[in-house]
Amino acid sequence: MKILVINAGSSSLKYQLMNPDTGDVFAKGLCERISIDGRLTHKVPDKDIKVVREIPMPTHSEAIQAVLEILLDPVNGVLSSIDEIDAVGHRVLHGGMEFVDSCIIDEDCKAAIRRCIPLGPLHNPANLMGIEACEAVMPGKPQVAVFDTAFHMTMPPKAYRYAIPTKYYEEDSLRRYGFHGTSHKFVARRAAELMGKKEFKMVNCHLGNGSSMAAILDGKCQDTTMGLSPLAGVPMGTRSGDIDPCVVQFVCNKYGMTVDQALNMLNKESGVKAISGVSSDFRDLEDGAAQGNENCKLALEKFAYECAKYVGAYTAALNGLDMLTFTAGVGENGPLTRAAICNYLSFMGVKLDPEANKVRGKECLISTPDSAVQVWVIPTNEELMIAQDTAALCEK
Amino acid sequence: MKILVINAGSSSLKYQLMNPDTGDVFAKGLCERISIDGRLTHKVPDKDIKVVREIPMPTHSEAIQAVLEILLDPVNGVLSSIDEIDAVGHRVLHGGMEFVDSCIIDEDCKAAIRRCIPLGPLHNPANLMGIEACEAVMPGKPQVAVFDTAFHMTMPPKAYRYAIPTKYYEEDSLRRYGFHGTSHKFVARRAAELMGKKEFKMVNCHLGNGSSMAAILDGKCQDTTMGLSPLAGVPMGTRSGDIDPCVVQFVCNKYGMTVDQALNMLNKESGVKAISGVSSDFRDLEDGAAQGNENCKLALEKFAYECAKYVGAYTAALNGLDMLTFTAGVGENGPLTRAAICNYLSFMGVKLDPEANKVRGKECLISTPDSAVQVWVIPTNEELMIAQDTAALCEK
Repeated sequence: MKILVINAGSSSLKYQLMNPDTGDVFAKGLCERISIDGRLTHKVPDKDIKVVREIPMPTHSEAIQAVLEILLDPVNGVLSSIDEIDAVGHRVLHGGMEFVDSCIIDEDCKAAIRRCIPLGPLHNPANLMGIEACEAVMPGKPQVAVFDTAFHMTMPPKAYRYAIPTKYYEEDSLRRYGFHGTSHKFVARRAAELMGKKEFKMVNCHLGNGSSMAAILDGKCQDTTMGLSPLAGVPMGTRSGDIDPCVVQFVCNKYGMTVDQALNMLNKESGVKAISGVSSDFRDLEDGAAQGNENCKLALEKFAYECAKYVGAYTAALNGLDMLTFTAGVGENGPLTRAAICNYLSFMGVKLDPEANKVRGKECLISTPDSAVQVWVIPTNEELMIAQDTAALCEK
Repeated sequence: MKILVINAGSSSLKYQLMNPDTGDVFAKGLCERISIDGRLTHKVPDKDIKVVREIPMPTHSEAIQAVLEILLDPVNGVLSSIDEIDAVGHRVLHGGMEFVDSCIIDEDCKAAIRRCIPLGPLHNPANLMGIEACEAVMPGKPQVAVFDTAFHMTMPPKAYRYAIPTKYYEEDSLRRYGFHGTSHKFVARRAAELMGKKEFKMVNCHLGNGSSMAAILDGKCQDTTMGLSPLAGVPMGTRSGDIDPCVVQFVCNKYGMTVDQALNMLNKESGVKAISGVSSDFRDLEDGAAQGNENCKLALEKFAYECAKYVGAYTAALNGLDMLTFTAGVGENGPLTRAAICNYLSFMGVKLDPEANKVRGKECLISTPDSAVQVWVIPTNEELMIAQDTAALCEK
């Protein structure tokens, strides 16, 4: 089976053509500068092929067209016919309260994604453009929408409701949603295989440029750090994470910012980049800290501290913890960050194995045999999760 | 010794005349509707006196004048001369980064309180009016300012810094401050007496109409739930507590609210009152829940859940916990809420004694002898703390 996985942004579109059973990637790439000029970067991992082409992409349709053409290219392609693509899986940011799972795309599904635009004003329109471009270029091809929010829809009201007037919940659907759901779901499923059972308590730390954590009971999300938007939770590369909303009021009133400008500052100019003054990339922060840069040290300390507090909070939410998992860029490749977080948790019997914790990018148990909590690095694969959800729905 | 404790709001002024050594209250009362018309309520606990008088109070000076007159009143008063008042202690909301402790009031101190007005725009001007009214009516009387933020100034940068551009910290002093510091300090000091030592890890839950929690190591605050303003942290009577600032953006954009109106909604129309749709008073919520009101149940569940998560978070921050304390209205008088919070914490060995936990308003150990964490109800007394700080500074 071959599934084309699409992640469409407002001016970009990532793709992977993959086997949902094995996880093999036949080809993958990126369209950039859509609606500006257009550039395609295409890779075929098995053949060590990488091509970069300037191709006019006035809309997402030309981008998808360019992807299909390169996939069919006799030299750089991997397909002899479009018919070899069994289905297309789309990452969609915000499923609002409409979607608790992935969904075959039809008119009803598109209408519901459109209804969620107020909740995901930046991403959902772009996701829809990707979907409609595929419809235009590959009419009749089965398509599936996989939502970043869906995995979190099992949260109980005490976790997802905000303490604001009920009308904002009932009329505007304002509540905690959470994101990175596809990654949390992928890791939770793998964790259950490693644990050899489905009934257990885990906290998954998806730590990357965007970071979120999830409290998961028996495979079902109970709470997560991101909220209505991906801004909330732990500090991120450029996002502030949790912050007193009074800060928005202060900067609007003092600097004459609009609320959109203030939120843009919290989303784009904050996070560890702001504290360090150096970079949003944790490798740069570790280099800086090693060279004695106090701001880099503080950014790393703050990040680990807030993550550790959420592990504690979620252990209370679950009233116990069996497994702690790290995934995504920093989670998979940041031994120092993992150690800094676990260092706060010895009170609950977490014991890291310093040798095992040196692992980068590979699945590995990094706690000692006598640790009260199993600690694992589990590499995530959101594209594979999307491909598998897509295959499963299309096979039904 | 007799200390007059003053808590001045924008149109109100509370007072207590008390003995800082014994905590005995000679008289106490409230001036209301200052700058509107003016009403004085005055009580003498020992003599069962309660008088209510309409007295014109165009400014705080007339209010203080009215307080002094009733204190000197031959029938309802408790003083024969103003000279019997040794000093006046003022509650001041926001000490910003200027004050790490209480302070004798002089021109420098007043200028510093004034510099903190941008951080406490509602309270600090009123607190200054109270101070200046006392100067006008009792010239030369020693006065002390006791800050709601001061106890929290021992927090490390990883706890108090927000992940926003450094200029907002350096130029505008935007950071986590925390409030209720006088109460947290009072309870922490009493906790150390009960523990028989100063070196231990505690979390204090000040739960009332406004609620905050503090992580305290060896008597020094390490973290607290409120932030730049008293809005952040757990949900409160009418305050939302922690919330994705994107909610501010959403309501401003959808409903045409100004950011001040949105923050007013989060401060005044949110919290357990908003979720329950019934009341900000926990007794009403418990009554409603007992009668099967699902919204009241959810409000109580949400409150206990968020409090429990912070206990977990702070136990990670401290990497362990020796004592958990409950204080203020709900903390002292809410057995159901205390039990609901502790119910999440059995994973860390917290065991509540159901009989002992029935206590209301009295100091009591409410955990079992084999609980891994001592759990106490410790009634707070902010006025006594202010009186003691005032006496201590004036005796120097």
